[in-house]
Amino acid sequence: MNLKELSARLGLSPTTVSRALNGYPEVNAATRERVLRAARETGYRPNRTAQHLATGKAGSIGLLMPVGAEAMSDLHFGEFLSGVGETARAKDFHLVVMPSDPADEVSGLVTLATGGNVDGLCLAYIRENDSRIDLMESLGLPFIVHGRFFSAPHPYPFLDVDNEAAFYEAVRLLLQLGHRRIGLINGDETLGFAVRRRNGALKAMQEMGLSFDPLLHCSTTMTEEAGQRAATGFMAQPDPPTAMLCASMVQALGVVRAANQAGKQIGRDVSLISYDDVLPVLRPEHFTVPLTTTRSSLRTAGKRIAERLIQRINGEETDDFQELWRPELVLRASTGPVPVKEKA
Amino acid sequence: MNLKELSARLGLSPTTVSRALNGYPEVNAATRERVLRAARETGYRPNRTAQHLATGKAGSIGLLMPVGAEAMSDLHFGEFLSGVGETARAKDFHLVVMPSDPADEVSGLVTLATGGNVDGLCLAYIRENDSRIDLMESLGLPFIVHGRFFSAPHPYPFLDVDNEAAFYEAVRLLLQLGHRRIGLINGDETLGFAVRRRNGALKAMQEMGLSFDPLLHCSTTMTEEAGQRAATGFMAQPDPPTAMLCASMVQALGVVRAANQAGKQIGRDVSLISYDDVLPVLRPEHFTVPLTTTRSSLRTAGKRIAERLIQRINGEETDDFQELWRPELVLRASTGPVPVKEKA
Repeated sequence: MNLKELSARLGLSPTTVSRALNGYPEVNAATRERVLRAARETGYRPNRTAQHLATGKAGSIGLLMPVGAEAMSDLHFGEFLSGVGETARAKDFHLVVMPSDPADEVSGLVTLATGGNVDGLCLAYIRENDSRIDLMESLGLPFIVHGRFFSAPHPYPFLDVDNEAAFYEAVRLLLQLGHRRIGLINGDETLGFAVRRRNGALKAMQEMGLSFDPLLHCSTTMTEEAGQRAATGFMAQPDPPTAMLCASMVQALGVVRAANQAGKQIGRDVSLISYDDVLPVLRPEHFTVPLTTTRSSLRTAGKRIAERLIQRINGEETDDFQELWRPELVLRASTGPVPVKEKA
Repeated sequence: MNLKELSARLGLSPTTVSRALNGYPEVNAATRERVLRAARETGYRPNRTAQHLATGKAGSIGLLMPVGAEAMSDLHFGEFLSGVGETARAKDFHLVVMPSDPADEVSGLVTLATGGNVDGLCLAYIRENDSRIDLMESLGLPFIVHGRFFSAPHPYPFLDVDNEAAFYEAVRLLLQLGHRRIGLINGDETLGFAVRRRNGALKAMQEMGLSFDPLLHCSTTMTEEAGQRAATGFMAQPDPPTAMLCASMVQALGVVRAANQAGKQIGRDVSLISYDDVLPVLRPEHFTVPLTTTRSSLRTAGKRIAERLIQRINGEETDDFQELWRPELVLRASTGPVPVKEKA
């Protein structure tokens, strides 16, 4: 059933039918209702859906949305999703967002892939012992990985930021400023990005013959509470850190509060560097003491992921293109030389 | 094709097939690939999808995601979506999120409804001259409105917060504290929630025989920049406001910055009340001067919307239930009596 046939059946002009289907106010409610009912009954699909049916495509891309106890990380997810959504809209694709337990993503991916509602998948939240690369290939759908596996039997398409370089550069700057007691408030180290950041931080320390004091290192969630709790714990120690590095601007909120409560001034008494995903409501330059950050936009990554996934669906990207973005280290007022110790 | 038939065809036990489809690591890669290929070729759908096919349901609920220049409001959308997602996951439903131009939501709704991928729709971002109630009924799918129409030919199901009461109570408090020059930084007044808030604020003023100075009233976006620009403009006037009311904690960030830059202390020199959607990263109690707010959780609203929409899809909610939530006015340190004017 095409537009011409549907119009003939209804005894209406194709223009009127098209206007009714596209919701123009010129079409009165009774006519619109007649047209929509006929469209449903005959299985007529307007424009894009008709095209997608003709090509066997659903016109949708799928991704999992982590839902559950750690749901506060959705500020990061929401930013990524906005990027994906902008590109999807520009390319006339739907998003199928499947709410999923972070501990059971495999069944979510299988359900999405076998349900026939999506033409391609974005895989994210890669873990250290993640074996989903095999699964993705078995599923037989175009896919792209946001992040990277730690081992994979063969090449696969991804977009990742160089998390190791980000934290390596950040710690190296702190070392150059004379800091030796450095507190690391990392993301959840069951996730790949946090593993790579820890490795980068460690590498910079090891190059100076140093290591992280286990008492100054924690793997935690991307929440304000977690940042505050970690920083408060660090600063309560007999030999507190002179500098801290945290994994998210959301954690940085809590670190700054902890420093204020401990009567320490950021940038003078204690230096702070945060990873910055360029979350629009948490801008490092708007903090009372503007924050030094290592920056890469999650929204831009989302746009690029959607762009490449749609290219793969359309057969335009056919190789296993691997793309690694380097975050920028942006210096602001929250980093300074190690403070001179006052005599007791 | 059911699980038993698929298993027989493959010469595997139903347990193995089920494990392969659900991604259990016990199944080796070759077997999993065989199973998934057979599932695709035969059109087998695992559990929930099979059930949905049997019932003629897609197992999905749909909503539009505003995408475009004003995309910063996605902090609010993301919070709402998290609530919808939590409930959808608990009820084993997918979300189909259609990126949509806020100026053309009708065609997005029609596409979603006629595409056969969703069993029900959530309609939001109601405008003052919105006539989509007719459209929603023509579409012939269960739906629920987040918000309310200003006029509708007959009853329809909705969940809304009492935005009028929220801003009425807020302004009444400021009047009780002696404020008369009150600045109103509202949301976009082409949207219903902002119209109702303005009406509530106006009603409180009118009860005292007052009105808003047009120079102290603006309708703007839910961004930090917009909040800062509006507050800076208000405070630069010859007769600046002694109190301000804004529509979002994101705007409040900008208002507080503007006050700091003008050398005014929140709560002493200028009072501030913000609407609080309970965004986890912007908590009013964490501001340097904790903010008085009128509070209602967007995430909880998202959960409730999804719950009711799924009930409607399942035929469990059959009346046009209209639910209005009353925001709470929570007093903190950002509101105080009108400051005594210093003599020139």
